Amino acid sequence: MPMSTAGQVIRCKAWEAGKPLVIEEVEVAPPQANEVRLKILFTSLCHTDVYFWEAKGQTPMFPRIFGHEAGGIVESVGEGVTDLKPGDHVLPVFTGECKECRHCRSEESNMCDLLRINTDRGVMLSDGKSRFSINGKPIYHFVGLCCGISTGLGATLNVAKPKKGSSVAIFGLGAVGLAAAEGARIAGASRIIGVDLNSKRFTEDGGVDRSVECTGSVNAMISAFECVHDGWGVAVLVGVPNRDDAFKTHPMNVLNEKTLKGTFFGNYKPRSDLPSVVEKYMKKELELEKFITHEVPFSEINKAFEYMLNGDGLRCVIRMD
Amino acid sequence: MPMSTAGQVIRCKAWEAGKPLVIEEVEVAPPQANEVRLKILFTSLCHTDVYFWEAKGQTPMFPRIFGHEAGGIVESVGEGVTDLKPGDHVLPVFTGECKECRHCRSEESNMCDLLRINTDRGVMLSDGKSRFSINGKPIYHFVGLCCGISTGLGATLNVAKPKKGSSVAIFGLGAVGLAAAEGARIAGASRIIGVDLNSKRFTEDGGVDRSVECTGSVNAMISAFECVHDGWGVAVLVGVPNRDDAFKTHPMNVLNEKTLKGTFFGNYKPRSDLPSVVEKYMKKELELEKFITHEVPFSEINKAFEYMLNGDGLRCVIRMD
Repeated sequence: MPMSTAGQVIRCKAWEAGKPLVIEEVEVAPPQANEVRLKILFTSLCHTDVYFWEAKGQTPMFPRIFGHEAGGIVESVGEGVTDLKPGDHVLPVFTGECKECRHCRSEESNMCDLLRINTDRGVMLSDGKSRFSINGKPIYHFVGLCCGISTGLGATLNVAKPKKGSSVAIFGLGAVGLAAAEGARIAGASRIIGVDLNSKRFTEDGGVDRSVECTGSVNAMISAFECVHDGWGVAVLVGVPNRDDAFKTHPMNVLNEKTLKGTFFGNYKPRSDLPSVVEKYMKKELELEKFITHEVPFSEINKAFEYMLNGDGLRCVIRMD
Repeated sequence: MPMSTAGQVIRCKAWEAGKPLVIEEVEVAPPQANEVRLKILFTSLCHTDVYFWEAKGQTPMFPRIFGHEAGGIVESVGEGVTDLKPGDHVLPVFTGECKECRHCRSEESNMCDLLRINTDRGVMLSDGKSRFSINGKPIYHFVGLCCGISTGLGATLNVAKPKKGSSVAIFGLGAVGLAAAEGARIAGASRIIGVDLNSKRFTEDGGVDRSVECTGSVNAMISAFECVHDGWGVAVLVGVPNRDDAFKTHPMNVLNEKTLKGTFFGNYKPRSDLPSVVEKYMKKELELEKFITHEVPFSEINKAFEYMLNGDGLRCVIRMD
């Protein structure tokens, strides 16, 4: 454990944003009150990283440190932190849980008012400053950093809630979609239908009991809604759409007793609910190993981007050595 | 009781469709197997009658007998009818419950496959023929005939399901909307907001917990959805849209954990669930008298249409004397 670095600025390898990715050393300020400084051991990439890296239709905020599916250990903690201590193994999460706002107090919501994701912020909440810099020049943060499995799994288990014996359609068979399929398997679905790229409509079939959209394509969202059964079908949207997209359907589809829901991080409250997800994995109730199809050292970060852009494999784990 | 007419063709006053309403005598054939012939004592009008009478954007089917919110008594029954006998007081319903199809067997749906509303049918299911005629020329049926209160009440109680202390917005303050508001009152809502014509958005207010749209205007539907609270808000669509309408919203509204649902007849299964609604009224838990603002004899049916077209009052009861 790098205990000796507590309270000091540390230097880490990271990369500056823009089109070609480069690895640079950045200075990381000590954690302030209620903050924690982590040593990231592994991370992986998801399309959200690519999306903000390309910055098409999003507020560009560069230079910035990307990555938000990580695992690491606590390096040091700021004043007032009592839940964590140096050496603890942690999964950073891109959304928070203050436990006090209307959302945290609601049984139904996990969209904490105080610590909700804000991809345009790029700085810390407490003082509006970045903790990263190169020679005094600030480098923006991205989101809090971990999401795919929880989002897909929770979209099925917490939101779509298929009954035992149900049919479930999953739109988009990346890591989020396959985690949603894992959720359907755990819930006892009798039929799991995977749809990718050429979204096929099932309406002639009476429709599926539940569908989970994990693509971000608005056409897949519409298909996912329209393919659920009238009378009881529930469609859950998960993917992040483009800024100018419109979800468009004939209102009669809604009146026919179909339900459209969306979820943010699978409706898991990060502090309250995530330990149960980790436990599912530890008990081997949740299959995760097959999600990791590649592993590269940090120096080959561009290769991880290539895998993702080519749709090659599922998750590439990046070793921070 | 007109028992002596059983098994014979009877002559009733009714009106032929088209722009000006006229009252004519029609012949009503005796009920066939599993059919019941009713003597209607009272009826009222709803916008659905006006909608199909105007036949804008709907398949025109004339001449036709309109009206679908009625009360009457059984005049005679066909072979195989064991649940009803002449003299029974009944509320005809525009949708059925065969108790055997997938929908009837599902706890969640009331959209019976066999007896679902079909406004284009205009004839009886068993033999594809009308039971109404004038000098041998068939007159088309409309829908099975009763809806407004159950639809609005059920939309709130069975679908939106507001918790005690919730805020509920109702879009459209006709009979259906006010029945939806009655549902909110019965459910213990702490704040009931009525919106009519100039739909006001509440998003700056954080949103309401539940909204129920009872207008048929697609813009009201979109407002009703967008005004619910992120994290837990549920919007329920009730109104019948136009054929070419599109429900359009940014998918982010869905991802922010809002739910969009629709309902058909308030999700009440007509045979199983309606007795409990009548019981609520008999026990004075449900306020209905205030819904009746006018009463006219059948000969003044055009006046009832005028009241409705002018938005004058709520329900006009038509006395079939």
